[in-house]
Amino acid sequence: MKRTAGEIGKAVEARVIGDDAEISGLASIANAAPGDLVFVEEEKHLGSALGSKASAIITAKFAENAKTQKTLLISENPRLAFARVAGLFSEAVGRTPEIHSAAVVLPSASVANTAIVDPWAFIGENAAIGHRTSIGAGSVIGSGVVIGENCKIYPRVTIYPGTNIGDRVVVHAGAVLGSDGFGYVSNRPAADRTGEGARPHTVLAYEKFPQIGQLIIEDDVEIGANTTIDRGALETTRIGRGTKIDNLVHIGHNCRIGENVIIAAQAGFSGSIVIEDNVVIGGQVGVGEHARIQEGVMLGGQAGVLPKKVLRGKGVAFWGTPAKPLREYLRSLAALAKLARKD
Amino acid sequence: MKRTAGEIGKAVEARVIGDDAEISGLASIANAAPGDLVFVEEEKHLGSALGSKASAIITAKFAENAKTQKTLLISENPRLAFARVAGLFSEAVGRTPEIHSAAVVLPSASVANTAIVDPWAFIGENAAIGHRTSIGAGSVIGSGVVIGENCKIYPRVTIYPGTNIGDRVVVHAGAVLGSDGFGYVSNRPAADRTGEGARPHTVLAYEKFPQIGQLIIEDDVEIGANTTIDRGALETTRIGRGTKIDNLVHIGHNCRIGENVIIAAQAGFSGSIVIEDNVVIGGQVGVGEHARIQEGVMLGGQAGVLPKKVLRGKGVAFWGTPAKPLREYLRSLAALAKLARKD
Amino acid sequence: MKRTAGEIGKAVEARVIGDDAEISGLASIANAAPGDLVFVEEEKHLGSALGSKASAIITAKFAENAKTQKTLLISENPRLAFARVAGLFSEAVGRTPEIHSAAVVLPSASVANTAIVDPWAFIGENAAIGHRTSIGAGSVIGSGVVIGENCKIYPRVTIYPGTNIGDRVVVHAGAVLGSDGFGYVSNRPAADRTGEGARPHTVLAYEKFPQIGQLIIEDDVEIGANTTIDRGALETTRIGRGTKIDNLVHIGHNCRIGENVIIAAQAGFSGSIVIEDNVVIGGQVGVGEHARIQEGVMLGGQAGVLPKKVLRGKGVAFWGTPAKPLREYLRSLAALAKLARKD
Repeated sequence: MKRTAGEIGKAVEARVIGDDAEISGLASIANAAPGDLVFVEEEKHLGSALGSKASAIITAKFAENAKTQKTLLISENPRLAFARVAGLFSEAVGRTPEIHSAAVVLPSASVANTAIVDPWAFIGENAAIGHRTSIGAGSVIGSGVVIGENCKIYPRVTIYPGTNIGDRVVVHAGAVLGSDGFGYVSNRPAADRTGEGARPHTVLAYEKFPQIGQLIIEDDVEIGANTTIDRGALETTRIGRGTKIDNLVHIGHNCRIGENVIIAAQAGFSGSIVIEDNVVIGGQVGVGEHARIQEGVMLGGQAGVLPKKVLRGKGVAFWGTPAKPLREYLRSLAALAKLARKD
Repeated sequence: MKRTAGEIGKAVEARVIGDDAEISGLASIANAAPGDLVFVEEEKHLGSALGSKASAIITAKFAENAKTQKTLLISENPRLAFARVAGLFSEAVGRTPEIHSAAVVLPSASVANTAIVDPWAFIGENAAIGHRTSIGAGSVIGSGVVIGENCKIYPRVTIYPGTNIGDRVVVHAGAVLGSDGFGYVSNRPAADRTGEGARPHTVLAYEKFPQIGQLIIEDDVEIGANTTIDRGALETTRIGRGTKIDNLVHIGHNCRIGENVIIAAQAGFSGSIVIEDNVVIGGQVGVGEHARIQEGVMLGGQAGVLPKKVLRGKGVAFWGTPAKPLREYLRSLAALAKLARKD
Repeated sequence: MKRTAGEIGKAVEARVIGDDAEISGLASIANAAPGDLVFVEEEKHLGSALGSKASAIITAKFAENAKTQKTLLISENPRLAFARVAGLFSEAVGRTPEIHSAAVVLPSASVANTAIVDPWAFIGENAAIGHRTSIGAGSVIGSGVVIGENCKIYPRVTIYPGTNIGDRVVVHAGAVLGSDGFGYVSNRPAADRTGEGARPHTVLAYEKFPQIGQLIIEDDVEIGANTTIDRGALETTRIGRGTKIDNLVHIGHNCRIGENVIIAAQAGFSGSIVIEDNVVIGGQVGVGEHARIQEGVMLGGQAGVLPKKVLRGKGVAFWGTPAKPLREYLRSLAALAKLARKD
């Protein structure tokens, strides 16, 4: 499926300079072949793009007078425009709707006639799958689960009963959504819990607290491979609209994650945490129960936030364990380095 | 399935005050509807429970004279009683035993006639599944695996050959049990391993050490979604009775985890570690090989324990990397903050 | 399947002293039964091996004059020799090649006639599976994926389209290979991204950057359970020959991991990182985007490497966050401890 430079320019609001070249795909500058479109955000990379085999370049105003046979598309935000071109090409690829004969759809479930259900997918009682949504091979959709329109559920995803998923949600392979939260009640008297009690340890110490709440995932969320998000205990775990979650992330019961939040790989959230809108969470960050990260905060990789802590400040970066404002944390590191040199 | 307040009170040893209300489920105070039971541990929350739509409240002695139309259940441990009521309701929900026609059970395997085997579950050679145990869709039970009674194996769990699982064990979706440990032998002379040797790096450096031991999981263990527990290399990896393990935890080969241990999400244990009974491990904690955490120790989130280290002290909390007694670690943090302010 | 001491000695270049005993398997000293082979690397463990029930011991020169009825195999590297004996025994176990009737192999895919495809495995369009490779139950092999010879893909592995895998690669259960990288473009002006802008947050902030590159896994790589490795965005993610990766590891898009690299459990790599050959990465290590770890560096558990940082030094250990040479980091810890005592 090809597009012309003119079509692309129109779709992503870029001004076309040069031939109305036929574009067959996107590439990096290093890998580009004839027919490919590449992008250049910074003037220093323009030369290598011009020297590449690409047929066209999405770039910014600085390039408009470049001497080249290649087609230029001048955009205010070349990276964003390039991303949107990818959308144009992937739209073009469509599969024929079907429910594979090796899938199991229980009679009370409803699957839209434009949806795709791959082999060995299981659609439980009263579950509902929306239009143009695809359910990958081996995915298990529990009873009462509702999945909206235009979602892509990759293979081998497990969605526990009652989970509610909006439109245009993408869930990568191996993710587990709506699993039981980690909540137990000790059946020992408080004194005993510190280890001083006389109760023999062969007696079971923990009984499960009910994990019967719900998980709601709003529109336009993307969830990475093998990530786990627990349902609420009695309340609801909620992932806000437009939030993007990387691989191997853990989100505990009752968490409320806002809109347009970015969560990098292997970050972990224990129970009842509030992450407000537009927060950015680095990889391997850990957040303790009942903490609140206010709007627009950024947490550096491996940072740790104590239980019940509140972090605030739009655009303010925090780092370290326990997490402090970046400037303060760097000052500590510098003071320590100085001290170590003196010793 | 409903229960009366009287039945519930009898089952969980709570004294009923007021009507013998019909209870249809459990809820949080905020979500409660008529027919629901809620719980109140602290007197400050009693007002909102009394003002909620719940029909009954499990609470403590402080509430016995409250003026209300609601039924009160007075318990010595309202949270524990509430948890046990959840058990009453979930017991009531039963599925009819069956082996789904799309499951594969090898002829030499034995499945109890009260067990449930869901579609696309695989039960390998000589495996044995006990009474009232359910095996979720797409789960793979390797050859020689023994699973006891009343276990719940959620969908898409993989259990490697030879693993032994007790009674009442719950394994959440995506968990992998009994996988190979991470053990290799370098085939380079020691000098070469430091990188100074002449051996060309295109030669393979590592050969696999045998990972042919076993994994034993005792009764009443619960294992979170996408958690991985490796089999022993030559010995046995063992998870003690009543231990609760959260999502995305890694437990390496030859570890011995005691009874009633709590392990929060994303904690990781390398090989041959001993965790004694009643230890509490926070989220993202890392423990090095051959370390030993003695009975009743608590490790704060993200703490790191060095290889071969022994931590001791019932009820003593440790934190930081390398983990130190909490008080000592906090003193370090305070001293550093003071130094940074001076600099 | 048994082997004689003589056969084993010949295969692993060990000198046999004593009877040509029949060996039926390997064991630890503690677990050994008659017919088992054990190994002893250090003289201090020789006594317990001699006192065990094992029939034979692989050990080193120090043991050659031991008085015993057991068969001794004298090797320059007993641990390595022992590992290789395990290989002899596992070679002996073979399954008959078959494509299970409950697998789906699309007509355009090619599966070698010596390969094994287990139930509910899916082999996509134009995928190719090499000789003697086995694909476990429920694994999903995307379109265009190429897997070489003698690979073992455990159950419930997902391999996204276009991934290329060499020979003798082992992939454990639940791993996800070739998933989309975590790359988004903000559609807000820069000023707005800091949170000061007027754009209402109900507008979606992030659009997906194309994740259309490839993942290449070279020969002799082993990948742990539930590990995730993302495809390149526009370029290629590459895992070098002989590299061993533990469970629950995350490797982001465009990373280039060298040969003979060791990566322990739960380590995480964000995008575009270069790890050179012979690097050793401890558990829970985190590495920021565009960092480079040069040949032979060792990173201690939980260490954190900042984005764009370069670490160098064959055989040099780094630790802490931000990672420093071990000696320097230990000096900081000591200075801090001293300061805390004074305060």
